[in-house]
Amino acid sequence: MLGLMQDRALLISTIIEHAARHHGDAEVVSRTVEGPIHRYTYAEAGRRAKRVANMLGALGVGFGDRAATLAWNGYRHFELYYGISGIGAVMHTINPRLFPDQIAWIANHAEDKALFFDLTFLPLVEGIAARLPACRSFVLMTDRAHMPAASTIPGLLCYEDLLAAAAEEFAWPAFDENTASSLCYTSGTTGNPKGALYSHRSTMLHAYASALPDSLNCSARDVILPVVPMFHVNSWGLAYACPMVGAKLVLPGPHLDGRSVYELFEAERVTMSAGVPTVWQGLLAHMKQGGLRFSTLKSTVIGGSACPPAMIRTFQDEYGVKVLHAWGMTEMSPLGTVCNLKSKHLDQSAEEQFRVETTQGRAVFGVDMKIVGADGTDLPWDGKTFGDLYVRGPWVVRGYFKGEGGDPLVDGWFPTGDVATISADGYMQITDRSKDVIKSGGEWISSIDLENIAVAHPAVMQAAVIGVAHPKWDERPLLIVVRKPGAELTREELLRFFEGKIAKWWMPDDVAFVEAIPLGATGKMLKTRLREQFRDHRLPTA
Amino acid sequence: MLGLMQDRALLISTIIEHAARHHGDAEVVSRTVEGPIHRYTYAEAGRRAKRVANMLGALGVGFGDRAATLAWNGYRHFELYYGISGIGAVMHTINPRLFPDQIAWIANHAEDKALFFDLTFLPLVEGIAARLPACRSFVLMTDRAHMPAASTIPGLLCYEDLLAAAAEEFAWPAFDENTASSLCYTSGTTGNPKGALYSHRSTMLHAYASALPDSLNCSARDVILPVVPMFHVNSWGLAYACPMVGAKLVLPGPHLDGRSVYELFEAERVTMSAGVPTVWQGLLAHMKQGGLRFSTLKSTVIGGSACPPAMIRTFQDEYGVKVLHAWGMTEMSPLGTVCNLKSKHLDQSAEEQFRVETTQGRAVFGVDMKIVGADGTDLPWDGKTFGDLYVRGPWVVRGYFKGEGGDPLVDGWFPTGDVATISADGYMQITDRSKDVIKSGGEWISSIDLENIAVAHPAVMQAAVIGVAHPKWDERPLLIVVRKPGAELTREELLRFFEGKIAKWWMPDDVAFVEAIPLGATGKMLKTRLREQFRDHRLPTA
Repeated sequence: MLGLMQDRALLISTIIEHAARHHGDAEVVSRTVEGPIHRYTYAEAGRRAKRVANMLGALGVGFGDRAATLAWNGYRHFELYYGISGIGAVMHTINPRLFPDQIAWIANHAEDKALFFDLTFLPLVEGIAARLPACRSFVLMTDRAHMPAASTIPGLLCYEDLLAAAAEEFAWPAFDENTASSLCYTSGTTGNPKGALYSHRSTMLHAYASALPDSLNCSARDVILPVVPMFHVNSWGLAYACPMVGAKLVLPGPHLDGRSVYELFEAERVTMSAGVPTVWQGLLAHMKQGGLRFSTLKSTVIGGSACPPAMIRTFQDEYGVKVLHAWGMTEMSPLGTVCNLKSKHLDQSAEEQFRVETTQGRAVFGVDMKIVGADGTDLPWDGKTFGDLYVRGPWVVRGYFKGEGGDPLVDGWFPTGDVATISADGYMQITDRSKDVIKSGGEWISSIDLENIAVAHPAVMQAAVIGVAHPKWDERPLLIVVRKPGAELTREELLRFFEGKIAKWWMPDDVAFVEAIPLGATGKMLKTRLREQFRDHRLPTA
Repeated sequence: MLGLMQDRALLISTIIEHAARHHGDAEVVSRTVEGPIHRYTYAEAGRRAKRVANMLGALGVGFGDRAATLAWNGYRHFELYYGISGIGAVMHTINPRLFPDQIAWIANHAEDKALFFDLTFLPLVEGIAARLPACRSFVLMTDRAHMPAASTIPGLLCYEDLLAAAAEEFAWPAFDENTASSLCYTSGTTGNPKGALYSHRSTMLHAYASALPDSLNCSARDVILPVVPMFHVNSWGLAYACPMVGAKLVLPGPHLDGRSVYELFEAERVTMSAGVPTVWQGLLAHMKQGGLRFSTLKSTVIGGSACPPAMIRTFQDEYGVKVLHAWGMTEMSPLGTVCNLKSKHLDQSAEEQFRVETTQGRAVFGVDMKIVGADGTDLPWDGKTFGDLYVRGPWVVRGYFKGEGGDPLVDGWFPTGDVATISADGYMQITDRSKDVIKSGGEWISSIDLENIAVAHPAVMQAAVIGVAHPKWDERPLLIVVRKPGAELTREELLRFFEGKIAKWWMPDDVAFVEAIPLGATGKMLKTRLREQFRDHRLPTA
């Protein structure tokens, strides 16, 4: 027997409609590529999203078609999110930090019918436009005054001209909530990129779950600045959660250095932010140098890669900013876990609380997780046993766009490629990526644990640990370190720093000092490159 | 084109599974009908809900069947919520405060196959059991020691005996998320009661929305005591939201007087509660009398009927407890709006903030609302214009069980029967029930506004305003008042108290002092009874 409740589909257009109606005067503030700060309200964003919808019709982009963006976090990008998904087309956010060849490959794979891009990326798009046969419209996201005098892109269009020519009247269509809404390719380090194809339903459920008090805790009293790009899993869903709750949204544009981000935090009275550890490194360095304080910032989400415990301490103890340590994946929309204390922890010591806060946290309601051994059997939740982390839920992929990579699921569960422990209280801690874990004599050593200790040393700026071939143990850990500018540090000093902090057999067999560690397009360390670079490294223990 | 996300149904069983797995040691504390305080954990609740599922199989209650309860807020009632809905049967919570004839009518209309009831209600059920032909199993929710020596109910069953005989192993079935999960009849003041038939989908979406920071703001750090009964729209959804977020749940049993509730608040370190204004009147009186303070309570949800502004002030100014003024209906699962400030209000004065806080608040994301005039056209959101309040959303009914009352929707919107204003910021304020508004010379006078002023007078305990026939103006307001014990107050003193607070033509034409105002089964004032009682009242102005 079915219930007798209204049959209303979960559609992304309802978010912008709600924001425009119930939070019409809440602001969206953008630092533009062109320079100035731009301000408008959700009411205005709602009207312009409708113009986008009409503009897409004029460009021949319809239901099910893909339309791509190469853009920073800004208001035009925000309007496109709602206009494109709102008509039932697919919002395809491309990571502009990829190599041009990869971008062209992805745009062709997606068969993008239109490409919208910021001024920054005009040279990039000029370089690949001729290789995108499916793409009929190239739209520069700027006004007439900033259009180039000439371009190698035939028929290059001006976003503001198109919008001005489009009507403001538009009624968002209703359709199946399982309709594809957006597409984001994983920056796979091996093989071709694979597209996660989100639906309206998955996006809406994720938006509800991500705004909960024990997730990112978003309200109409917040001012939220996603440093995490809108091309990186929908800025971790904040592009949806903010208008859903009516939070003021601050979009930082192209400049993500410590100084630029700090200025916006203070000028716009930001209460909450979100980004990867490398961004916060830059911000914290800027603040320390200038002896600066946060006036309004209360919390920041740190994810993308594990947050070094030392960074959590700095934010919380020195600046009074709560760190929401989070974990997710492109394949998970992206939110999987967020670290928040439970009642039982509130009476514990700061040190005991801190131990909980170094984990990636508890599953957001809707996500189910487990750890399994090599034979696929469930492993215990004791906070010690490592296993391959599997997840499932309504915002987890069941496959990739066009079937790329085959069926990734194992009995309905998605294998994350992460190795983790889960405590009896459900706190998950990533121990490593499956491919990065160091297999020493049949036992596993966590590269992340070793890296966290290394970066806690005052002379270390960055550290990576990889497994290097060893005749007796198969693999042994090599610690690769970038020293802080001007700092002195020897191999022996650094290794002494590990003593008493780890089991003896986890001790790195060697230390290599380097000028820089290669980073991928999303700011993660490229261990594949390091492994290539150090393939022939001979350990002193070998 | 459809998205490629996992097809996982929104099912109520996932809540108790999540709570048992991720918040296994969080407590459910119940004050039992039998007397003692009972404690167990979500892990234990999860195991017992599975026993309930097996017990239902043994009793012949299956998918789509209705199983009813007549019970207070307690752990056995909580297990039944999950066991019954979990197998795809329908959890039918009956309001035991209805007259026995109404209860029998409702149970027969629902064709309940089993009835579970607390010891308190044994005499009631003995009185009606013979008139419930569809009901095959009568189960007393107690243990063997508390079973009566004899009962007029043939084959009366003992809940704990049945549970002990049922296996703990059970795999929750998967089915369409639109399947009916629970049933709650509205206590209609006219006509037959009508059943709102919730679905798993509506319940789950409501649970997400209700736990949001700008809704009831529930987290794993909360201890939540729903005073609002579990037979009253699923204790406003808290029976689902609490285990969803892992909050400790405190169930107060049958004693809802100020002293009993206060004791539980303090003993269990309650941080959040929820109930109707009349319950809080009792609590505040008890606290004032004893000079008591709250040690842990941070917020309380007040709904069911409009919260008098004086009560909001007392909670916030005298006790430092945030009032979440809320509005909803049985037909809305029930949450429609909750009052929370926006960023823009934070810099305003306490008085300006208070003015916002006296409204019923903003629409919870998922609920869409509008006010319409007599001709059905949309009215402006200016905070002044009154109109009939219409709502829609995935947790709003589209009809009633068995088609009772026909199709209630108007162009897809549900007419709430309330008259309201909506401000430009989306804050809704109930002005009256459509049927209670006083129509004076073609203009409307809000009975609730007048009642709020009356109860702000220190000598007034309760007040109701009804329209009484008037030869010139059609209707004029009559103010009916219960004085506080020992307080003296004359008609003239009370009317002077209104001067300057309302337009002159809103001034009540007369005052009637009474010993008590009749209350309905959900604690609301029964204005129909008052209208009957005062039908022949002759106003001095007539």
